[in-house]
Amino acid sequence: MSNVLAIDIGGTHFRVGVFDPEGCPLKVEEGDTDSAAGRDWMLTQLTTRCRTLIGASATPIQACGLSFGGPVDYRQQRVTSVHAAGWQGFELGKWVEQNLGLRSHLDNDANAGALGEHHSGAGRGAKSLVYLTISTGLGGGVIVDGKLLHGHDCLAGEIGHIPISDSGLLCSCGGRGCLESFCSGRAIETRVREWAARRPERVERMIQLSGGPEITAKAVFAAAAEGDAAATHMVRETTRWLARGLLIIVRLLNPEVLVLGGGVAQSGKILLDNLRYFLEELASPTIVSSTRIVTAALGNLSPLYGAAQLGLHLA
Amino acid sequence: MSNVLAIDIGGTHFRVGVFDPEGCPLKVEEGDTDSAAGRDWMLTQLTTRCRTLIGASATPIQACGLSFGGPVDYRQQRVTSVHAAGWQGFELGKWVEQNLGLRSHLDNDANAGALGEHHSGAGRGAKSLVYLTISTGLGGGVIVDGKLLHGHDCLAGEIGHIPISDSGLLCSCGGRGCLESFCSGRAIETRVREWAARRPERVERMIQLSGGPEITAKAVFAAAAEGDAAATHMVRETTRWLARGLLIIVRLLNPEVLVLGGGVAQSGKILLDNLRYFLEELASPTIVSSTRIVTAALGNLSPLYGAAQLGLHLA
Repeated sequence: MSNVLAIDIGGTHFRVGVFDPEGCPLKVEEGDTDSAAGRDWMLTQLTTRCRTLIGASATPIQACGLSFGGPVDYRQQRVTSVHAAGWQGFELGKWVEQNLGLRSHLDNDANAGALGEHHSGAGRGAKSLVYLTISTGLGGGVIVDGKLLHGHDCLAGEIGHIPISDSGLLCSCGGRGCLESFCSGRAIETRVREWAARRPERVERMIQLSGGPEITAKAVFAAAAEGDAAATHMVRETTRWLARGLLIIVRLLNPEVLVLGGGVAQSGKILLDNLRYFLEELASPTIVSSTRIVTAALGNLSPLYGAAQLGLHLA
Repeated sequence: MSNVLAIDIGGTHFRVGVFDPEGCPLKVEEGDTDSAAGRDWMLTQLTTRCRTLIGASATPIQACGLSFGGPVDYRQQRVTSVHAAGWQGFELGKWVEQNLGLRSHLDNDANAGALGEHHSGAGRGAKSLVYLTISTGLGGGVIVDGKLLHGHDCLAGEIGHIPISDSGLLCSCGGRGCLESFCSGRAIETRVREWAARRPERVERMIQLSGGPEITAKAVFAAAAEGDAAATHMVRETTRWLARGLLIIVRLLNPEVLVLGGGVAQSGKILLDNLRYFLEELASPTIVSSTRIVTAALGNLSPLYGAAQLGLHLA
């Protein structure tokens, strides 16, 4: 078997890499995504970097796995993102075949992340796994019997858009009360902006940690880890919602392991401690599940490792 | 292949039957469960009826599938029900082997119902299916890639105990805000009792349809189908909660078909019409799933048909 190329296109960063037939990385490169520069800019970046990687590979590369950070039409192997300008309906798989001369296999970043953590990360050897990506949005990938569950319309794992709240808050998807509206990175940042407007004296430490006036979700968790009162309050509010989502997954799918990935999950201990506290509050003491809840072992690279798996399935 | 024996033990009725190797019923008998009479009474009923069925079978019967209407320890093949007196920890599978001389295979009624509807009912030919039993309680069975999903602790499909509400209402399981507390038969009957206490003049038609002072969930749906105002209100309240549960299943699992079984589901059109209305209210117009939502084709017999499948897997 040959090496494969892996590509992960995210809203903040993009990554390309070469992986060996075991799914181990030989070379990984990362760049910042310039959303304003649009799709063609991104494709130029990918072309240049990928051609260099392909040229430098010790064995010929014939296949490429792709992770896209947004909705993907898996059957048609194209991007359906309506959020990122210029990508809607783009046949990314076909583009790779035509421009890089490689067979390709595309999935969204949550499914790719699930594959990555299952093969190379926190879920190695697990029969069933659910991977959550908690970043700007909230996505999920489900592995059952060692295989990715796509579902009838290739829409399984849409944990961000389960209706979770009685309040009926309108979500960016047009649905009501979706989990993503309460505990994604964007939701945390909206919440902290409201605090900053009402009580600017309470968010000073978060501004310092953010390195600018726009407070990041990462800074909220970091300030809470230091004991900052307002940040602690926001982390508790966020994780109580998220615990509801996790408990729903545990009750419906009862996976062996539940892996938390994406930028927000990198806060680590403070996230897990809060989630465990609220899971105890909500869950039945009589329905005892042994699902392990852990953070991603591959950090930001879970989707790239998963993209490598997508490529290896072709190779 | 030989015929098999199928047994379904429920809180209100029990059923025994003989099924042919294709999973078609040759003979089915039903009796009323006398909960007060306890476990030994039930076992005596089953012994007598099953021995008669076995004796009358045209081909020798060697295997028996069992559905139990309550929690089951699937790995240990025993009942774990803490609700029905005398059943907790009972090795029902072993009892069948010792008393009827048949190999046995036991599962809970929601998993059995899923198997039954998948093999012989509304989900024939579907690659993935979720079956909900909406009766006194609320349970679920999940079929992925044609196979029952048990989960890591054999606790998958526990849809009744997903945390659905912000209110934190305490559930009989000890958890908070569980779906079952809002839309099971028991929840409907609690709700109508509260109405009856506060506004006795509004529940007269429901009392007539129940045939006694205790208003049944069935009578609430029947009165709503006639246009009764209070019953319509209760059906709307109940189905709005249930729609949230269904949408969660669709988002997480995206099954080909979602089958509604159990006593409450037999109200049919009025249930489905209300669910579709609330699914439209809650769901995103941009995340379009084609999951079919239907009522059980086998009515009350879904778990018995599924028990036959459990037996046939052994035969």
